[in-house]
Order: sequence, then structure tokens, then C-alpha cells
Amino acid sequence: MLSTIESPDDLNLLSIKELEALCKEIRKKIIETVSCNGGHLASNLGVVEIAVALHKEFNSPNDKIIWDVGHQCYAHKLLTGRYNVFDSIRKQNGISGFTKPFESEHDVFISGHASTSLSAACGFARAEILKKTSNKIIAVIGDGALTGGMAYEALNNVSDLNNLIVILNYNDMSISKTVGGFSRYISNMRANQAYISTRVAVEDVLDKIPLVGEIAKNKIRDSKEAIKKIVYKSDFFTDLGFSFLSSVDGHNLSELFQALNWANQTDKPALIQVFTKKGKGYSKAENNPDLYHGVGPFNIKYGVVTSKSKSSFSTVFGRELCNLADKDEKICAITAAMEQGTGLCNFRKNFPDRFFDVGIAEEHAVTYAAGLGANGMLPVFAVYSTFLQRSYDQILHDAAIQNEHILLCVDRAGIVGEDGETHQGVFDTAFLTSIPNMTVYSPCNYLELKGMLSRALYKTNGLVSIRYPKGEEDTIVSNFDDSYCDYRVIGKSDIVIVTYGRLVGQAIRAKKLLLNNGINVAVMKLGKICPIEKEVLYELMKFRKIFFFEEGIKRGGIGEHMISDLVELGFNGKWNLTAIDNSFVPQSRIYSALESLGLDYKSMMEKIISDCVNVRDRKALVVNERG
Amino acid sequence: MLSTIESPDDLNLLSIKELEALCKEIRKKIIETVSCNGGHLASNLGVVEIAVALHKEFNSPNDKIIWDVGHQCYAHKLLTGRYNVFDSIRKQNGISGFTKPFESEHDVFISGHASTSLSAACGFARAEILKKTSNKIIAVIGDGALTGGMAYEALNNVSDLNNLIVILNYNDMSISKTVGGFSRYISNMRANQAYISTRVAVEDVLDKIPLVGEIAKNKIRDSKEAIKKIVYKSDFFTDLGFSFLSSVDGHNLSELFQALNWANQTDKPALIQVFTKKGKGYSKAENNPDLYHGVGPFNIKYGVVTSKSKSSFSTVFGRELCNLADKDEKICAITAAMEQGTGLCNFRKNFPDRFFDVGIAEEHAVTYAAGLGANGMLPVFAVYSTFLQRSYDQILHDAAIQNEHILLCVDRAGIVGEDGETHQGVFDTAFLTSIPNMTVYSPCNYLELKGMLSRALYKTNGLVSIRYPKGEEDTIVSNFDDSYCDYRVIGKSDIVIVTYGRLVGQAIRAKKLLLNNGINVAVMKLGKICPIEKEVLYELMKFRKIFFFEEGIKRGGIGEHMISDLVELGFNGKWNLTAIDNSFVPQSRIYSALESLGLDYKSMMEKIISDCVNVRDRKALVVNERG
Repeated sequence: MLSTIESPDDLNLLSIKELEALCKEIRKKIIETVSCNGGHLASNLGVVEIAVALHKEFNSPNDKIIWDVGHQCYAHKLLTGRYNVFDSIRKQNGISGFTKPFESEHDVFISGHASTSLSAACGFARAEILKKTSNKIIAVIGDGALTGGMAYEALNNVSDLNNLIVILNYNDMSISKTVGGFSRYISNMRANQAYISTRVAVEDVLDKIPLVGEIAKNKIRDSKEAIKKIVYKSDFFTDLGFSFLSSVDGHNLSELFQALNWANQTDKPALIQVFTKKGKGYSKAENNPDLYHGVGPFNIKYGVVTSKSKSSFSTVFGRELCNLADKDEKICAITAAMEQGTGLCNFRKNFPDRFFDVGIAEEHAVTYAAGLGANGMLPVFAVYSTFLQRSYDQILHDAAIQNEHILLCVDRAGIVGEDGETHQGVFDTAFLTSIPNMTVYSPCNYLELKGMLSRALYKTNGLVSIRYPKGEEDTIVSNFDDSYCDYRVIGKSDIVIVTYGRLVGQAIRAKKLLLNNGINVAVMKLGKICPIEKEVLYELMKFRKIFFFEEGIKRGGIGEHMISDLVELGFNGKWNLTAIDNSFVPQSRIYSALESLGLDYKSMMEKIISDCVNVRDRKALVVNERG
Repeated sequence: MLSTIESPDDLNLLSIKELEALCKEIRKKIIETVSCNGGHLASNLGVVEIAVALHKEFNSPNDKIIWDVGHQCYAHKLLTGRYNVFDSIRKQNGISGFTKPFESEHDVFISGHASTSLSAACGFARAEILKKTSNKIIAVIGDGALTGGMAYEALNNVSDLNNLIVILNYNDMSISKTVGGFSRYISNMRANQAYISTRVAVEDVLDKIPLVGEIAKNKIRDSKEAIKKIVYKSDFFTDLGFSFLSSVDGHNLSELFQALNWANQTDKPALIQVFTKKGKGYSKAENNPDLYHGVGPFNIKYGVVTSKSKSSFSTVFGRELCNLADKDEKICAITAAMEQGTGLCNFRKNFPDRFFDVGIAEEHAVTYAAGLGANGMLPVFAVYSTFLQRSYDQILHDAAIQNEHILLCVDRAGIVGEDGETHQGVFDTAFLTSIPNMTVYSPCNYLELKGMLSRALYKTNGLVSIRYPKGEEDTIVSNFDDSYCDYRVIGKSDIVIVTYGRLVGQAIRAKKLLLNNGINVAVMKLGKICPIEKEVLYELMKFRKIFFFEEGIKRGGIGEHMISDLVELGFNGKWNLTAIDNSFVPQSRIYSALESLGLDYKSMMEKIISDCVNVRDRKALVVNERG
């Protein structure tokens, strides 16, 4: 049946029973596809009925559905004409694992970071009002995303947006369990069961309290008024301006239709609290939604295999931080709903008093760290590069001006692969180094990461960042250790490749193969990329040609800082900078992205060869390398 | 009496009557000083009793008081040993108008931007718990600051911080009236009056409802349970983890002492809702707290004189946007609680349906704009440069990836003067230009600002920013109009000064005076500073010496972008870049700051002279200029 759905209109032909069967098909297709391609599983299984009900009740794309953290869009994609290309999800040139307006008119807004849907929906809804249409705007947001402050900024602004409908998908989870009091508040509303009918009951009871008897009339009357005020006036969502419906079963299509129908009729912004189960329909995911949040390919029957032995920069970081925290009670670790991803599970277990998951709240995380630091602790905030973008002002204003000694451990720095544009960690070099008082280290392997952790905590003043890539170290450089040096030059030549982080391995490969082809280049690997010391510049002045490769945005990156400093010192050799130039990097495997950006070892070779030898030799050399 | 208070300990010697008299003295001193120096008035007059009560009840600096938006710290400063230097507030080398840890051990955290105090306080409180002290942490935050999302992220994380006390200072104002539903929610709590005693009354009443009579027993019992649940379970602040006390009169010392005493005893995080009046004690400010939020020097008797005729970049922007909006119904204007500052008062009056004050919510503002833009509107977000730092991720993720056509009007770009480090608008060039798809214009006068508005809205694709400085245009350049050109070269020489924005006036002055001294330089003024077009670079390649002056951070600024591009094209002339180098710019008058940064016309002259002529001539030339 699913294969016949070409657009949401086709849902109108189906009965409830058929729609329920369709939901099963959708779940099956999602599980099969994610088991092959990897992707987000548990969240998508949780919102299948919501997607079906929304597309049946509303008329997309006139009515517009905005999915918070677009990774919950798989069912939506299957219902909006992308069944046939669904197998390509998250692959190079395939469809995106997130909503993407360039891909379909039904994906009205991009969304990879959490907590943005309500702000965007407010904008869309306001525009419809200004255009005097009767279109509805629907935002679907989970309780996890509600830990992010901007969602609340938007809630504060719904006022008269009568065409706005918010589906609050309560599953008590971000990637891990949702933290904080607000989730408790929402959860407690469930206890009230049918909220609206309770209100009627309240009125009923109050009206029937007899005004005679052992208590004086006035006291009772006052108290009745007080109760009414509490019940009526102090309701959070109502005061925000919403008509509010609670306790809808998010896996029951009939209930969903009733609720959406109610929301469609109401003349105020509507908020529907829907309860769902993350991972619904695949028992392994239901039982372990953390693990099945984002997964690589897996066997459906046996489920995801977690190989504890496999190291990554994240796990090495987590382990080393535990070692250090064992000896130093001042060390605290902070995550923004990314305990597992950032490698902090063991830290939480070993040091529960000093571990803090603050929710999807990167702004708070940094200022919280600054507060801890200002009061004598050694706070370490481990965070993905892309999400740290949320904290630019807090790093600058709350940490850098006072030069607080806090450590930002910037994971997934550089290309991240299949998550695509919204998740690439290619801006941190630019935004972090624009901030005064900032030191940035960039290890090329596990050894250096460990050394730099100590160096950052104990040998560096003020604000420090360590940035490291997704995944494993490159074995070709695994024995390097320049943790306590700002740089090292490998080899002798008047031509030098300068780079840092993951690309050091590519540079070493390029150097070796170039040598095989009779071209001798040196490699300068940077360990500290900010500030750039004079010593590094003087060393570079000795070279005739500098090829700088950078896995980050060109504008504001390390390459630009360096050439600016070099020219001021009078450098007049040849300079060539390869970095990401005014563009976003689409989804693909990490190495493919490096290739297409000219940042892999082959591209490095080609660039140097094309500069160093004539055309005929160049061809021979390239053949030589390939053979 | 005030002059004898050397530290908060001295408050212990005073009776309530004396403390009340002290409050009067404090108000008088604040009004007198601000009338001379300018500064923040209304907010400071509102929190005098709170400051006195806090310093009497708690033991600073062991107990730590964190003031949200530190500009409400004047009474605090007067009570903590800074009476004698209070006259220097906001002056060069004087004390800061904000809390500043370098200045006093009683200023525990820097704070210039709103909504940060709760996050910082969580950090301080957690550190005290880890250090096993009994110190208390007190955050004072207004309802205006609670429109900022990060405050809510922090509220979501107070959990078990039993040593945390939050004073929620409700005055229904940000700079303008506080917007949004949450303020309504807090305000409505007031209606409940003594909240805690109401709870007791509720229980009382419910227990006394007779379980016989015309209604069946069971129904009543169920309803009673339902009421209890609503009353007990769904309270926002309680579910967040707070002990909560409402409706304290913030100008009544006795009430404040009682409340603080209660908070000091409670074994949970405590939140006290205090009602105050902004401007309290100076009737002109009470009646017009907007106007008396931040003021220049004024006459106490006659009050602030608003000269409507005085133009600034902000008012010119506001006027021109009205002209454009008259002809184009798609234009919408957004402010983050800065209607007056950004020049949007007339826009609000003329186009109330298309004007949106979203509160202190810069993250929401950008994504809201992106939503409006994606749905067919032409949104213009007018915002101070320093506050736009909050939106880095939203600009990048929600607007740039989709390349939404929205316009950021970046006011107070560059040096802002007396507000100092926390408010300088010197990072936007770096963080905006790191974002792909971004166009940035930089007018040097009103004419260009007007032209660039049209160019940005109608002749530019995608994401656009226009950045302009605080204050008035420089009359020496007021007839320039290159709104539709990317650049212009003035004069002929092989030496060129390159600059943009406010510094164009300085460059023209320097050029003229240099010519008087026999040195001929050209000036290249940039109108579009990002992206840098090839044509501009080819033009620059013609010069032998380039002096680039930039009123912004060096790392990631336009100068670095430009030299990087020039070197790639083979430029090998002399390059000299003057910008803000890895430092924060302290408070002073704008021109003084430019001087100390080497960005005024005299510094420009000196730099060029020192490069162009020998020492003896140089001395003669400087004498010549001064004479």
C-alpha cells in the first residue's frame, strides 16, 4: 500500500483500518532502510501515526508541517512522494536524513539542530495571517527539544497566532532521558488526565460547596475564588495564549484525528500534548531508545552490536578525563544531552556528583561552566562543534572577557559525513579564534588528545578549546606526540604542507607518495592553532612555498590568520590555501567529502605536483601513484 | 550616612529606619551621578531596597550576589566600597557601569548581556556544594530578562541546588514593556496573593466539602482529587524544583527581610517574586521608564530633553524603512526588546501588524525572520551588533543553509563607548563573514544607509546584513553615495588607505592632512565588505602599499580575508593591517577608543608618515599638523 502513496492526498482514500496497516508498512520500511543505511531510528518509529494523522487531517504544502530536529521526518518523507528514493537516504547525492526544502515542497524548513521549529512556525504562521490565508501551520516538537531555550522564546511569542498548532510529542527522551524540571511539569500534566473535562468538574464542585455550615461564608467564598484563580489563571500554556489539550495517545489514530480536528477548529493557538514511545514497533529500540537514536547499519534480527573495544576520539577523551578526574576533584564534566556521543558515560558512572547533563542547552552549558570556573572548579564542556555554534555569545561574553579557565572539548570538529550541511563541524575554527583570550589545540591522534587535555587543564591559562574529529585516529600518525609543542616540522625542503588535526595523516601520506615520485616536501603539523606564536611564523618564513590545507571554513580560519601574520612579517614566498570556500558541505562519507573539497592526500599531491612540475611529468607521476 | 558605608558589614549597625533613610541617600546619589555621567537610571532606582536587603541579610562575598544585566548594580556598588569612586562610573579608567570581577570581590560575575545570571548562579551554587560550604548564591533577575531562552535553560537545571536563591524582580519592563505570555503568567501569580497560604486554604476547603447531598459521593471525591492535582502538581516553578514565595513588595524593607529570611532557611532552591517599580523615587523616571532606562547627562529638575530633530544612523534607518514599507506590504520589522534603540518606534506606529517585538530573544528573532522569509515576507531584524552574537547558530543553520532572503540591520556596529567590553560591536564582521551565502554592506553615511537598504532588499539575493555605527554620520563624508557600488577609490597614488563604515571619515581626514604635508595617498572605501569581489582585488593589486584600517576584531575580519585573497592573486606589495588585536576594548568615549586603537585619522597619518618619510621629516610633519 505504501508504494502507492504518491502524495498526502492519497491518504484520503484510506479507511482507519487501512491507515493503521499503512503505519505498519511505514515502520517496516523505516527499519529496513535504517538497518542498511544507518540513520535515526527510535525517534522516527515514535512519530509514524502522528505523521499519518497530520497528512490526513491537513493539506500539505498549503498547510505546513515543521518537524523539530528534522531527523524525525522519515514517515513524512515516505508520505510525500519519496518512497521510491527512500533507499538513498543519507547517501551521497541521495535524499537527506533531515527535512530539506530544496528536496520537496513538503519540507518547508530546514532543521538539523533542535528547538528551532516553534520559532520558524511562528514566522510561517504570521506570514499566512499577513497574507490573509486560512492555511494552518503545524510544529511537531518533542519534550527533549523543549529543554532548548529558543523553543521557550518562541512559546513566549505565540500570542495571537490562531493558525498555529503545536504537537508536543512527549516521550520523556532527548537522545538520553530528558533532563530538568520542565519535563516534570509536562509529565505531571498527564496525571490530570483529560484536562479540559477536569476544568468542568472543578467548576462543578466549587459551585456546589455549600455556603453554610461550620465555616464562615466569607472564608469559603474567598477560598473558592483562590482555587479558581489557581486553576484558571496560573496555567502555563494557557497564559502563553494556547488552547490546550493533554494526554492524547500518539499511537492511536482515532484519538489523534479527534485532537487534530479540535485543534483545526479552535480560534487560538493550539497545543496538543501527545504521548508516544520512542522506538515503537521494534522491541529492541523500544527497550533501548538511547542506543537506537542514531545508528549505523545493523542486522534487524540481532540488533545493533556495540563493540566496546572500538576506540574513537570521543571514547579516548572520556577515558582520559576519568583518569584526570580521579586525581583532581575540581574537574567537572558537562554535556548538552550528548552523554554517549561525547564519550562521557563512564564519567557519569564514576563521578555522578561532578557530571551534568543540562539538556539541549548549549548556551546555559557554557555560562554554567563559566560560573563553576569562576568559583574554583575545572569545568569541561564536551560538545559537538556544530552545536557549540549556539554558544558563541556565551563563550565570548560570559567566559572570554573574564578569561575564565574553562575547557571546551569540541567533538565532531571537521567533516561529519552523512548528517550533512546542518551538522558539519567546520565553523568552530573561525568563530572560536575570533574571540580574544582563546587558546585552541588540535590533536592529530589519541596520544596528542590525551596530552593536550592535561596541557589545557594545567599548563594553559584562561579559556581553552581542544577540537578533534569524528571517529578514529589515522594509524599512519598514531605514534606522533607533540601535545606540548605548538608545532613540528617533518622533513626538510623549501616546500611545506601546513595543516592540523585529521589532515595531518593525509599530509604525511601525500609527503610519502610525493617522495616516491621524486618530489620532496616538508610537513608542518600544528598542535596549537590559536594563538599563532611568532616562532611558528619565523619557522614558516624559511619556506619558499607554503601549501595550507584546512578542514574548516576558509573565511576566518587558521590559514587566513596565518597568511595575514606572515605578510606583516614580510613573507613573499608562494602561498596556497585550500579550505572550505563560502559553501556548505553536503552529506557523503567523510573521505568522499574530503576528496571533493581537495583535502585528501591525493588532492594534496595533485596540487603540489601541478605547481611543481611540468604537465608531461605530472601525468607520469599521477600514473605512478595510482599504480 | 552612605559615605560611611565602607563594606556591607556596616549595614549591620543600622536600624530599619536608618536603612530606609540610606535607601533615600542611595537614590539621591544615583540620580545625581547619572544626571552627570549618563547611564542606566530607571532599573537602578527600582532595586535599591533589594540591594540593601540582600547585603544586610547575606554575607558578601562569601555569599555571592549575581545581578542579571549588570547595569542594575549601582546600589550594589555604592554598598560595596565604591562610594568614593562612584563619580567615575562609565568614564575612561573609571568604574564600570556593569558588574566587573576585576573591580571588586563583590562583583562575582561579569554581566552586560541579559538572561545570563541564572546559568552563572547555577555554576556558582554547584561549586559551593562540591566544596561543601554553606554559602548562598543569589541571582537577581527581572521579568524582562526571563524572555531570553537561556534563563529558562537554567531554570530547567536548578534541581537540587539548595543553596540557590532567585529574586525574580517583576516590574513588567525590559527596556520597553515586557512582551509575551510568560510575563502574563508571572503577573497572574500576583493575583493569587499569598500563594502559600492559599494552598492551605485550598486544603481546608476541599476537606470540608460535605460528601453527602445532591451529588454522588464518588464524583465529588474524584473531582476533589483532580483539583488537588492541578493545584499541587501543575505549578510551573514548583515542578522546576523551587520553593516559591510570591507577591513581596520590593520597596518594603521589612517584607524583603522576611522573604529573604524564609529563603535562607528553606532546604530547596528558593524563588521569591518581588514587585518593584522601575524609576522608583524619581517621578519623571517612574512615569517614563523607557526614556530613563539608559540616558545621557541631563538636568535633574527638567529631566531628559528628547530632541526629535537629532538624527542618527538608527533614526535614519527607521525612517527609511517606513518609506519602503509604505510601498511594500511584505516588509516586516523585528526587534528584540530594542524598539527605541533601533529606531523602530515609527514603524510600530505606522505598521503595527508588521512590527514584532519578540522580547530579549535574539535566537528566536532570527529563526522567526527565517520563517517569515521562507513564507514570502521581507523580514528585517534590527539589532545591536553585540546582541546579534546570540544568533550565530540561527543565522548559520536556519537562514544561511537555505539562503533565506532576510535582512539583518546591525546597529551599534563598531565601538560603542561607555558601555565598554560587554557591548562593543566589534565581532560581527568576523562572525557574519564566516557564514556562507552572506552579503554584508557597510555604509559610511545616511545616504548610503538608505541606498543600501533598498539594495539589500531588492537587489541582493539571500541573506544580507547592513552594519552601521552608533550615533551620527561624519559630516566630512555626508555627501558620498556609493550605495550601489562595491567600492570607490578617491584620489590617485601608489599608496592607499582601505577602510569601510565610520572609518571612511577618518581616512578622508588623514588623506587631506597628509596632502597638506606633501604626502599623497588614495583612499579606497568599501561599501560591500562581504563577499569581496575580484574586481576590488584587481584594483588593489595596482597599489604598492596598502594600509587597511578596521573598526573590528582582526582575527576573521575583512582585512584578513582581503590579504589572503590578494596573496593568492600574487600581490607582493606592502600590507599593513590595523584592527583590534586579540583584546577587548574597555569603556571610554568612542573617539578616545579609536585613538587608543590606532584607528583615528591622526593615528592613520602617523602610521603612513612613519612608513613614508625619514624621522626628521616626520617630526616636522607632526608639528605641522598640530599647528
